[in-house]
Amino acid sequence: MFSSVTRNYCRKIITRSFSITSMAKRIETDAFGEIEVPSEKYWGAQTERSHRNFKIGGEKARMPEPVIQSFGIQKKAAAIVNTELGILDPKLSDAIQQAATEVAEGKLDEHFPLVVFQTGSGTQTNMNANEVISNRAIEILGGKMGTKKPVHPNDHVNMSQSSNDTFPTVMHIAALTQIERNLLPAMEKLRDSLNKKSDEFKDIIKIGRTHLQDATPLTLGQEFSGYVAQLGNGIRRVRTASESLRFLAQGGTAVGTGLNTKKGFAEKMAEQITKLTGVQFYTAPNKFEALAAHDAIVEVSGALNTVAVSLFKIAQDIRYLGSGPRCGYHEISLPENEPGSSIMPGKVNPTQNEAMTMVCAQVFGNNSTITFAGASGQFELNVFKPVLIANLLSSVRLIGDTCDSFRLHCVDGIKANKDRINYLMQQSLMLVTALSPKIGYDKASKIAKNANKKGLTLKQSALELGFLTEEQFDATVKPENMLGPKN
Amino acid sequence: MFSSVTRNYCRKIITRSFSITSMAKRIETDAFGEIEVPSEKYWGAQTERSHRNFKIGGEKARMPEPVIQSFGIQKKAAAIVNTELGILDPKLSDAIQQAATEVAEGKLDEHFPLVVFQTGSGTQTNMNANEVISNRAIEILGGKMGTKKPVHPNDHVNMSQSSNDTFPTVMHIAALTQIERNLLPAMEKLRDSLNKKSDEFKDIIKIGRTHLQDATPLTLGQEFSGYVAQLGNGIRRVRTASESLRFLAQGGTAVGTGLNTKKGFAEKMAEQITKLTGVQFYTAPNKFEALAAHDAIVEVSGALNTVAVSLFKIAQDIRYLGSGPRCGYHEISLPENEPGSSIMPGKVNPTQNEAMTMVCAQVFGNNSTITFAGASGQFELNVFKPVLIANLLSSVRLIGDTCDSFRLHCVDGIKANKDRINYLMQQSLMLVTALSPKIGYDKASKIAKNANKKGLTLKQSALELGFLTEEQFDATVKPENMLGPKN
Amino acid sequence: MFSSVTRNYCRKIITRSFSITSMAKRIETDAFGEIEVPSEKYWGAQTERSHRNFKIGGEKARMPEPVIQSFGIQKKAAAIVNTELGILDPKLSDAIQQAATEVAEGKLDEHFPLVVFQTGSGTQTNMNANEVISNRAIEILGGKMGTKKPVHPNDHVNMSQSSNDTFPTVMHIAALTQIERNLLPAMEKLRDSLNKKSDEFKDIIKIGRTHLQDATPLTLGQEFSGYVAQLGNGIRRVRTASESLRFLAQGGTAVGTGLNTKKGFAEKMAEQITKLTGVQFYTAPNKFEALAAHDAIVEVSGALNTVAVSLFKIAQDIRYLGSGPRCGYHEISLPENEPGSSIMPGKVNPTQNEAMTMVCAQVFGNNSTITFAGASGQFELNVFKPVLIANLLSSVRLIGDTCDSFRLHCVDGIKANKDRINYLMQQSLMLVTALSPKIGYDKASKIAKNANKKGLTLKQSALELGFLTEEQFDATVKPENMLGPKN
Amino acid sequence: MFSSVTRNYCRKIITRSFSITSMAKRIETDAFGEIEVPSEKYWGAQTERSHRNFKIGGEKARMPEPVIQSFGIQKKAAAIVNTELGILDPKLSDAIQQAATEVAEGKLDEHFPLVVFQTGSGTQTNMNANEVISNRAIEILGGKMGTKKPVHPNDHVNMSQSSNDTFPTVMHIAALTQIERNLLPAMEKLRDSLNKKSDEFKDIIKIGRTHLQDATPLTLGQEFSGYVAQLGNGIRRVRTASESLRFLAQGGTAVGTGLNTKKGFAEKMAEQITKLTGVQFYTAPNKFEALAAHDAIVEVSGALNTVAVSLFKIAQDIRYLGSGPRCGYHEISLPENEPGSSIMPGKVNPTQNEAMTMVCAQVFGNNSTITFAGASGQFELNVFKPVLIANLLSSVRLIGDTCDSFRLHCVDGIKANKDRINYLMQQSLMLVTALSPKIGYDKASKIAKNANKKGLTLKQSALELGFLTEEQFDATVKPENMLGPKN
Repeated sequence: MFSSVTRNYCRKIITRSFSITSMAKRIETDAFGEIEVPSEKYWGAQTERSHRNFKIGGEKARMPEPVIQSFGIQKKAAAIVNTELGILDPKLSDAIQQAATEVAEGKLDEHFPLVVFQTGSGTQTNMNANEVISNRAIEILGGKMGTKKPVHPNDHVNMSQSSNDTFPTVMHIAALTQIERNLLPAMEKLRDSLNKKSDEFKDIIKIGRTHLQDATPLTLGQEFSGYVAQLGNGIRRVRTASESLRFLAQGGTAVGTGLNTKKGFAEKMAEQITKLTGVQFYTAPNKFEALAAHDAIVEVSGALNTVAVSLFKIAQDIRYLGSGPRCGYHEISLPENEPGSSIMPGKVNPTQNEAMTMVCAQVFGNNSTITFAGASGQFELNVFKPVLIANLLSSVRLIGDTCDSFRLHCVDGIKANKDRINYLMQQSLMLVTALSPKIGYDKASKIAKNANKKGLTLKQSALELGFLTEEQFDATVKPENMLGPKN
Repeated sequence: MFSSVTRNYCRKIITRSFSITSMAKRIETDAFGEIEVPSEKYWGAQTERSHRNFKIGGEKARMPEPVIQSFGIQKKAAAIVNTELGILDPKLSDAIQQAATEVAEGKLDEHFPLVVFQTGSGTQTNMNANEVISNRAIEILGGKMGTKKPVHPNDHVNMSQSSNDTFPTVMHIAALTQIERNLLPAMEKLRDSLNKKSDEFKDIIKIGRTHLQDATPLTLGQEFSGYVAQLGNGIRRVRTASESLRFLAQGGTAVGTGLNTKKGFAEKMAEQITKLTGVQFYTAPNKFEALAAHDAIVEVSGALNTVAVSLFKIAQDIRYLGSGPRCGYHEISLPENEPGSSIMPGKVNPTQNEAMTMVCAQVFGNNSTITFAGASGQFELNVFKPVLIANLLSSVRLIGDTCDSFRLHCVDGIKANKDRINYLMQQSLMLVTALSPKIGYDKASKIAKNANKKGLTLKQSALELGFLTEEQFDATVKPENMLGPKN
Repeated sequence: MFSSVTRNYCRKIITRSFSITSMAKRIETDAFGEIEVPSEKYWGAQTERSHRNFKIGGEKARMPEPVIQSFGIQKKAAAIVNTELGILDPKLSDAIQQAATEVAEGKLDEHFPLVVFQTGSGTQTNMNANEVISNRAIEILGGKMGTKKPVHPNDHVNMSQSSNDTFPTVMHIAALTQIERNLLPAMEKLRDSLNKKSDEFKDIIKIGRTHLQDATPLTLGQEFSGYVAQLGNGIRRVRTASESLRFLAQGGTAVGTGLNTKKGFAEKMAEQITKLTGVQFYTAPNKFEALAAHDAIVEVSGALNTVAVSLFKIAQDIRYLGSGPRCGYHEISLPENEPGSSIMPGKVNPTQNEAMTMVCAQVFGNNSTITFAGASGQFELNVFKPVLIANLLSSVRLIGDTCDSFRLHCVDGIKANKDRINYLMQQSLMLVTALSPKIGYDKASKIAKNANKKGLTLKQSALELGFLTEEQFDATVKPENMLGPKN
Repeated sequence: MFSSVTRNYCRKIITRSFSITSMAKRIETDAFGEIEVPSEKYWGAQTERSHRNFKIGGEKARMPEPVIQSFGIQKKAAAIVNTELGILDPKLSDAIQQAATEVAEGKLDEHFPLVVFQTGSGTQTNMNANEVISNRAIEILGGKMGTKKPVHPNDHVNMSQSSNDTFPTVMHIAALTQIERNLLPAMEKLRDSLNKKSDEFKDIIKIGRTHLQDATPLTLGQEFSGYVAQLGNGIRRVRTASESLRFLAQGGTAVGTGLNTKKGFAEKMAEQITKLTGVQFYTAPNKFEALAAHDAIVEVSGALNTVAVSLFKIAQDIRYLGSGPRCGYHEISLPENEPGSSIMPGKVNPTQNEAMTMVCAQVFGNNSTITFAGASGQFELNVFKPVLIANLLSSVRLIGDTCDSFRLHCVDGIKANKDRINYLMQQSLMLVTALSPKIGYDKASKIAKNANKKGLTLKQSALELGFLTEEQFDATVKPENMLGPKN
């Protein structure tokens, strides 16, 4: 036991010794002149400047990994297309592609030290990608890092591109691939899980609750079917909104005109990125909009916001239905996953529901940030790009993760407490509603109020008031006949 | 002159005297007993109780008129369908339909005194509709108001319905008809107007601005084409999201099961409402979801939020482009509609832009309210219905109105200040970008920085640094060649 | 009965006939030339232009009355001070003061037709005030309306003022007077009401609930004491934040410099407004901030947002505690104010709680609007003034009204259901917590889990497991000893 | 060069080899039974369960370090107080204190793997602290980790505590210490920096801008004084709101009653925490409120939201004032910190302003999350604690960091472009306002409009219209006399 901790300390020391050796520096240059960078890192002068000038938010504010890895895809695609168009030397192109692939595969994540709160165009992260890929390509080609030869970060890696069209392109790649690969499958699995429960519970008749007050009955399966419908609609909403993400800004360069690109570059890039990701992309029909606004991000965030609204309702309902065990509704039991209290022995809590509702609260806030940032573009460029994509990816990831977690650790293990459900249902006064078409709303109302006041059952009250015979009552007030329209 | 004001005062006195006579009361009853209501009003006991118990927000908080008028449509449809299904006496049905038509036409608005901040199911406004229609139908049939005979508010007007399915139905009718009739046409007209300007300005080359800093050129028409694209996308977003509104909760009654309806009621109601409104509606496939959640409202609000994000950007850009007249950008002139200042003579301000951006701020807030309210449903019922629909209708109305106002009083009158545009464009140092593919990013960078530092033109700087000949410079740096990709 | 409705129709006809006569027009003029206005109205050319150019939002978007009436106070104060400073003829001043008093008293509300969504400086409403007061003063002095003689709207009514300092001054007057007169007293009364209940319930021991799961006991009075504390803190928060509203922009004129005022004007205005309102105001120490930013409004909105957070929690708790009557917690009974359902006879709902939680949702949205609008000022002027004050006044009014309504129609009538409370409390397994210090967390945990699994009481489980004797158990597990720290 | 990268790869391999050895496991137990944990980590069974059950959000969602380190302080204080109260063995207490100190100093951060999206009470992080401290204390005392002997995580480390009072206590410790140590000093330094610029620019007369349109003049120093005032007010707002954080929930234990504490524990804990942090804390007067609501967090977030509103305005103004260099306002020059564009050579952008405005957008969203989470507490416990504190700490950190960054890399280097400022100011037509008191608003208005229409100077226009002599004009229209009230 002891030794493992010792080992842990050792590791720290070893790491620290590496840090010492990593104090080694090399010189990189840009339009502002020379600057030292850590020699073990691939990044160059502009990354280093940003790293020094934007000490905002620390580790938690690091540019999200899907953005960095999507830069790998985008830079690789650009190298391929530029070579196809005959303007990039195939030898350089190969090295760039190899380096970009490493970025795409997440192998060079640690060479991307920049935070979200940098320049609002994401230029510094684009340059980070250009610099890392150029230096890695130089290395591959046996050159000397920092010389920009034979692979220049701007002239070659960034060829035909501007940050202003590249970063938005990467935003769409990152968001859409995460949505298609992680978010939608997680939502679908949760929907299916809820649907299974809805089937399982289809014959359990329970009291309905409106305004939190006892209402007419329904089945527990019907109740869960509402959640299934919400998830189903949510999936459709995310899918529909995500269509806007298929359109890429690439090819607009600095202000949307496409200056310094060759004709066809934009279209070929969309094709190439489609090929590399397996996700369908198109070139945006209007590049001015694609740089200056990020309405597509706002639209998708609106869909995620709606999904969070659904999830909040579902998680909230389920934790109330499971409340108790003895002093709450307790119509269902949730799986017991962990001890619930550091002071109350034996307590078990609806922790997955709590995590899910906290995720929803986070998504609502992310949507506010995205709304504000989306509205604040100016002229040819929206300069809230990093904060937009960081918040969108946060929502995408959190919803996907919580759907999986909630499904595995909550929904799949929900059990109906049939006795409790039946006991409560039998008590309800709102079964009186079945009498309404027969004796009228006003008399039915008197029966219910009389029962409530005197603590009677409905039947007792009905008979006491003399509005029906016992046979009439029994023939009419049948929960099992109250679950749908009549013929 | 004097007399007109006198007349005004007279009117007040006359009105007041009516108020005195209107102190006349009649007795209405409900399950809680008797209560006095003003005899000149059609409403009954439950409306009166709500009116007394919810003094919250005053006139501005009154239930929006589209909700009230949509109740007319919904109640009329219910009378028709109930008669078709053989459960409502045709004579009563006719009177109900006539009364409901008057509600639908806005003739009885003043008989709907209730505010948004009432019961969260909107039950009291549903009962308000039931009571007004029942009393008006009684009146038509020669009966005595308040007797509930021969037309009972619950048993006849509300037949086969619950507030819980009726109010959500009305929410969708009100929202979708307003969107289709007012909002979308206003957005389309604004898009067309902007498009016309985009065409008009298609040959005016101007400086682009990114990060608010001078960038490469584009045409003023291209700049406006971005706004056109935003509006176009916005129209699509609203249309797509609004599809969710086509599904009606009607037929779910109290908890979604459809208790106390006859089979077919739900479907026939959707058909009938479609017929009465000319807008396509369907019955909701899952009524549990349709009562317990209002995700459709949240979804539409998300689309409106995205539209507001677009409009904010457009209105903001246009007011900056028009800033000045002498100390701002002033590339365009906005129409002068009113004196702008109570202290600065001759000042004219971009007031339509200000109104539009204020509308956007309001829509962002409405979306927050809707998000919160949408997430807070419980079990079989969301009880934030009135505040949800009030905020959605506010956004729908405000966006529609501001689109019309902005188009008529701003966009249509925008003029390009060609001399100013050309003057600024010629000054820009960012035309240097055209040199980049020729001489490389680093040298181009030096030219621009040298020019900026010494106050030179680009050409002067380029020649001074000796990177190009004058002929080479002139052949490359041509704004008119910087507006698109190259062959 | 019939006749009262007839009378109602008559009134309509009479009103309509007035409308016809009111088609009479007079000519008013401004820097843009002549324009017709309805002769029965006091407003002038600039109001008329705004009325025509900003058809946005309709009646519900009218500038709130507290703003209009505060303009009466502000203009009266200006007339007094300008006369004191020797630059306004006392005769004109008297007439202006008389007219302004009528505005302040709400007598001329109908002469203020403009909406919130106008110019963002509120200039048009300031000019509306200037025009109405000037025409009414002209009338008082026997002149001809529209001639601007002898009282000119700009030169006399607006003397030493700009909209840019006047409108913010009025914002603060309107907000602070509403807060002090209506909001704070309503919050205090609600706190006192809750406190009374806390006292009334101080000996009723009930089960606590954390994570919605049964927890250790507390008294119902302790539970309510939390609400009292929240309200108490809320009152302090509103008071503290409102201090920022005491500082008036008046005297800054167009850009904050105070151009065209005499020294002392700003200070004297604050004194005069203090005198007229009975509310303490000071001149803002920095007028540039006071025009260009409305951080004070954002600050107060933040406090109201916090209050809404508190109220939401309180109203939500109380409706859950009252849920049932037979299938919910039902530890308390809420007063029955109205029939609750149009379909379920005898149903009573927590409608005041629903109204209050809807108010909270609205306040959250208002806060988002205010945040966005507050952040969007530019250079010397924030041009979101009308939407800022309209949303703040909405929050102020709605919270005040709902506090009164909730107190009168809910809190004051809450009754504790002692039998139910005691029944639930005795069932709880979490009384086991009292054993923890004696037998350790792990054994206590086993007792609770064993009881839950086998449906035993705690004591049965403890004895079965043999961890304590019956005497030991009884001596330790006493709810009445679990309500506070031990000696 | 190559070798550094090689070294980097080496490090990876070495780290990986550690990971392999770290596959060693030990058994930990809790009420749910046995579970394996990595033997190199101090955490126990409950941490491990949470780690497995809440795979939500990954690294970025880790509980913020200030929370973890504040747990060190809180647990140390508890050990001290429990020993003082005679219920904790001094020997165990010493070991607990030593371990807790290591947590407080951040030495054991890596033993806290849990994410924010866990149980809403933060119980799992409290147990993480209990387990880490107990195991580390066991290690110190020469025991065997996982045996809970001689130091039990619940019975000793968590003695007299519940997560329900501990986590809120830690929330307040973390927030207030961060605010006092980092945020407020950063805001103060930024205010002082802006104030220095205000002084430096106090004699530079420039054109004012209202509605973005040219207005009357002010000095650049006056303009900056508005920013200084905003920061000053913001500091006051944060200070005032933070007072609520001084009140600690500790001593309330499970539901607020203080069950299982000794009298005096709550008060002594506040004293001890004050001593350990050097920041003043008190025990909360009402513990029910302190567990069930987090209004204090909402209040502080409201203050931070207001600060972000101020910062947005300031950063936005400054980037517009610096816009250009040739096609914008360009009244000031911002420091050039990095190359601005990957495609446009020589471009420099207002990147610090962009980072700051992105931070503001994030803070607005955080505030929405906090509002929603704060409102959603239930009965005796708010179960959104982790998401509340994570968002608050995010806002605190981001604002502090951006204030520092903006000050160092932007404000301190701002230079006034005096020639440009003077040129623009001389052009303005709004100097006409000075004529208003002399010749009346209507004539002044004509002069300005005539000048604008014909491209004249004001003087030319005035003379052309014959309203004044040249001498009169020159005597009145003096910018230097337009900067304040007149005697």
